[in-house]
Amino acid sequence: MSNREKIIAAAIKHLNKEPTASMARLAEAIGTSRATLHRHFASREALIHELGERSLDRWEASQNEAGLAEAAASGDPERIAAALRTAIHLFVLDVDEYGFTLTDHFLAELPDLVARANELEEREVVFYTAAQRAGVLRSDVPVRWISYAVYGLLIAARDSLRYGNVARRDLDKLVLETFLNGNGAGGIP
Amino acid sequence: MSNREKIIAAAIKHLNKEPTASMARLAEAIGTSRATLHRHFASREALIHELGERSLDRWEASQNEAGLAEAAASGDPERIAAALRTAIHLFVLDVDEYGFTLTDHFLAELPDLVARANELEEREVVFYTAAQRAGVLRSDVPVRWISYAVYGLLIAARDSLRYGNVARRDLDKLVLETFLNGNGAGGIP
Repeated sequence: MSNREKIIAAAIKHLNKEPTASMARLAEAIGTSRATLHRHFASREALIHELGERSLDRWEASQNEAGLAEAAASGDPERIAAALRTAIHLFVLDVDEYGFTLTDHFLAELPDLVARANELEEREVVFYTAAQRAGVLRSDVPVRWISYAVYGLLIAARDSLRYGNVARRDLDKLVLETFLNGNGAGGIP
Repeated sequence: MSNREKIIAAAIKHLNKEPTASMARLAEAIGTSRATLHRHFASREALIHELGERSLDRWEASQNEAGLAEAAASGDPERIAAALRTAIHLFVLDVDEYGFTLTDHFLAELPDLVARANELEEREVVFYTAAQRAGVLRSDVPVRWISYAVYGLLIAARDSLRYGNVARRDLDKLVLETFLNGNGAGGIP
């Protein structure tokens, strides 16, 4: 791993714990000098931009690995359900690694990253729409809401991990189960 | 409304749109001078602290108005389900007004606010535990997860409102329905 890669890996790890850390604080926390950190990243914004880009790379890779586009095109309920399960599994791994990027207000103001995030969201909306048509997801719910609900539950997964309140190995299942079947016991008066 | 209250109301409104706004930017956006803004709030942190406190006041007021503690103590499924419905309704209104505070990284680092947020979360966990015992919520799911899931779905509601993709009047129902019954169509292979 190059020095640059080591710095990036350490910066992500620290920002997940302290998302507001300044460049000086980050340098200290990851055990490098401010000069070295600044040689690789001219500003905090440049560093955040790179981390944001990587988290979007990961999101895209997970969409591809889960085969969302192919499953949507097939229209086959079994393939769609399997792709959904794989996607949630991969997304939970991703938020474990890139947690702070999910809600970083600075990232949400970098126009090129926002544009790319919107594109990835559109791809997912195409998949959720196909899932509604195939009878895998409810069709009486706006597809945008479905997309936001997945995002919200991934934030819930991230925070569960961060505060250590829920066992790591149960999270995939909790996100998927809550998303598909909810937390109601069925017999609500 | 005093000048201070007017400034606070305008600051919340603007921070919901641009959560990283500096004091200078905020003063400009809300149409006041930097000197006036600084007379009321010595620093950005002081302003954020006040807004965070108000959002916690609101959270507490909504818990009380929904009667979570009384419903939990009663153990009555009907009362618990009604309190849950009221709470979600009020929480959706609250995130509409105090949206940015839900994921503000600076707020999450102010120790007294974190301590109070944890206390309010504990109160809610007591309620969700009672809801599990009364058969309103699934008891095979960790109660902490239930609490995080509500939080995540409220973030989803906030973003739905922010980007205008989902009709305002449907949101309560979407949050509650997703939380209780999920978005699965039932016939998943």
